[in-house]
Amino acid sequence: MMFEQLGLIGCGLMGGSFALALKRAGLVKRVVGYSPSPATVERALQLGVIDQAATSAEAAATGSDLVLVAVPVAATEATFKTIQHLITPHTLLMDVGSTKSDVVAMGQRALGKHIGSFVPAHPIAGKEVSGIEHADADLYVGKQLILTPMESTLAPALQKALEVWTALGCHVVQMSAQDHDAAYAAVSHLPHLLGFAVMNAISGQAKGAEFLSLAGPGFRDFTRIAASDPKVWRDIMLSNRDEILAQSRLFQQSLQALDALIESGDSQALEASIRKASHTRAKWHMVQSKK
Amino acid sequence: MMFEQLGLIGCGLMGGSFALALKRAGLVKRVVGYSPSPATVERALQLGVIDQAATSAEAAATGSDLVLVAVPVAATEATFKTIQHLITPHTLLMDVGSTKSDVVAMGQRALGKHIGSFVPAHPIAGKEVSGIEHADADLYVGKQLILTPMESTLAPALQKALEVWTALGCHVVQMSAQDHDAAYAAVSHLPHLLGFAVMNAISGQAKGAEFLSLAGPGFRDFTRIAASDPKVWRDIMLSNRDEILAQSRLFQQSLQALDALIESGDSQALEASIRKASHTRAKWHMVQSKK
Repeated sequence: MMFEQLGLIGCGLMGGSFALALKRAGLVKRVVGYSPSPATVERALQLGVIDQAATSAEAAATGSDLVLVAVPVAATEATFKTIQHLITPHTLLMDVGSTKSDVVAMGQRALGKHIGSFVPAHPIAGKEVSGIEHADADLYVGKQLILTPMESTLAPALQKALEVWTALGCHVVQMSAQDHDAAYAAVSHLPHLLGFAVMNAISGQAKGAEFLSLAGPGFRDFTRIAASDPKVWRDIMLSNRDEILAQSRLFQQSLQALDALIESGDSQALEASIRKASHTRAKWHMVQSKK
Repeated sequence: MMFEQLGLIGCGLMGGSFALALKRAGLVKRVVGYSPSPATVERALQLGVIDQAATSAEAAATGSDLVLVAVPVAATEATFKTIQHLITPHTLLMDVGSTKSDVVAMGQRALGKHIGSFVPAHPIAGKEVSGIEHADADLYVGKQLILTPMESTLAPALQKALEVWTALGCHVVQMSAQDHDAAYAAVSHLPHLLGFAVMNAISGQAKGAEFLSLAGPGFRDFTRIAASDPKVWRDIMLSNRDEILAQSRLFQQSLQALDALIESGDSQALEASIRKASHTRAKWHMVQSKK
């Protein structure tokens, strides 16, 4: 498997890292990149992330047998509309968004008869920083990659998507967009929501700044995800609203149950509840690709 | 500054790491160690954490000019009672507990006229694993160390405490036990409580195990502290109950405010709130010793 041309629409952390990884693996002949900011495109050229600058999403997709739309989810539908006439049954079109039901709906609205070439993808990888400067050929190595094909997805497109991410070192998992959004509401969106809430809760106190200056390594790791990009996470929270609010309610019940044990001083039940959490976490291991 | 003998009462992660660091720095001639489990004492000897095994806390404190009580907070008062007659004005007695008001009260009850030699200490360091096997001479390097001296604390004891932790590479901060407990309720105890609650909330769902298998690096870092020792954290939650419950209430208000913005779909206000959290976290840096 070798692609003639990657059309990269959105030269940020996720898109840039994909281009670098693809080039390193020798899976693409050239990368044509577009971002709304000319400075970003210029920097992507300088860093060797892309080989050629495009002045529009359309120009990036033209002649590309692989198109990666790595823009904020809110901008995905407009991007699809712009490029839909350039997608053929031989193109592989993917996104990298953190929510999938919304992206599937966008594809169905905007891609028309070309929907079969679109394979929605979500790499379970990221950094607390964003932008082309942090693009990293190793970002996806050993990580999980979720594909959420639709009934209309063409088998060759799905096969190519599976192969390319596997070749980049990902452990590829397939599921429905709905199952994806339910799972990631619990294990990704909820933790981010809690991270944002804890930063605001502490910094909003009179002594918040002083408290923060005393925080240590546990706090550092716990709140790392709270530094994530505000626009991206605003979109995720709104797009997967119902699942996230359901997870937040379950979480608050769990927290209030612990609060009640602390308040009543029920030492045995409190220890048992903490032990359950601690045991679950200690035996948990992140699924990683064997590659 | 050089100690003749460290009496180490409690050969776990915290105590063992202190002994290893002290020996590596050449600040102690010998370490006499005691733990309730003979197997632990034996292993501490094998690993070179201690030089001599004691059969009781009393035996470990006998002849020691430095005594570190590194036992669960719940066992601290009983330990103090056992050894109080061995503490002189020339002894430096410290603990390493995560809560300080309770330990100060224990000292006042159990140490009697020897209270002046006791300098309550809390190293802002830890691992999600416990036990002598994980003892590490580098555990405290570059970390903050909080001392909460009382009015009765003897100046030479406080000075020695400051010097020894500084020599181990810590950034030493002094404050009252009450201020300590308020600050760490916010930046340590609350995050642990949330970590335990999130593990229980997810694993308690019908699809919890499946969800957990899909979690990635963000979840891994966010929940690292949830694997902490259940007995230690039961004690902390009960000992600092009022401050922790107050922080939990503030946190829930903060979370519910975000939930309301998600529910109402107020995109601008939601982005602003996430941005505030993200900005606070991005500009935060853990205070580290320059040494």
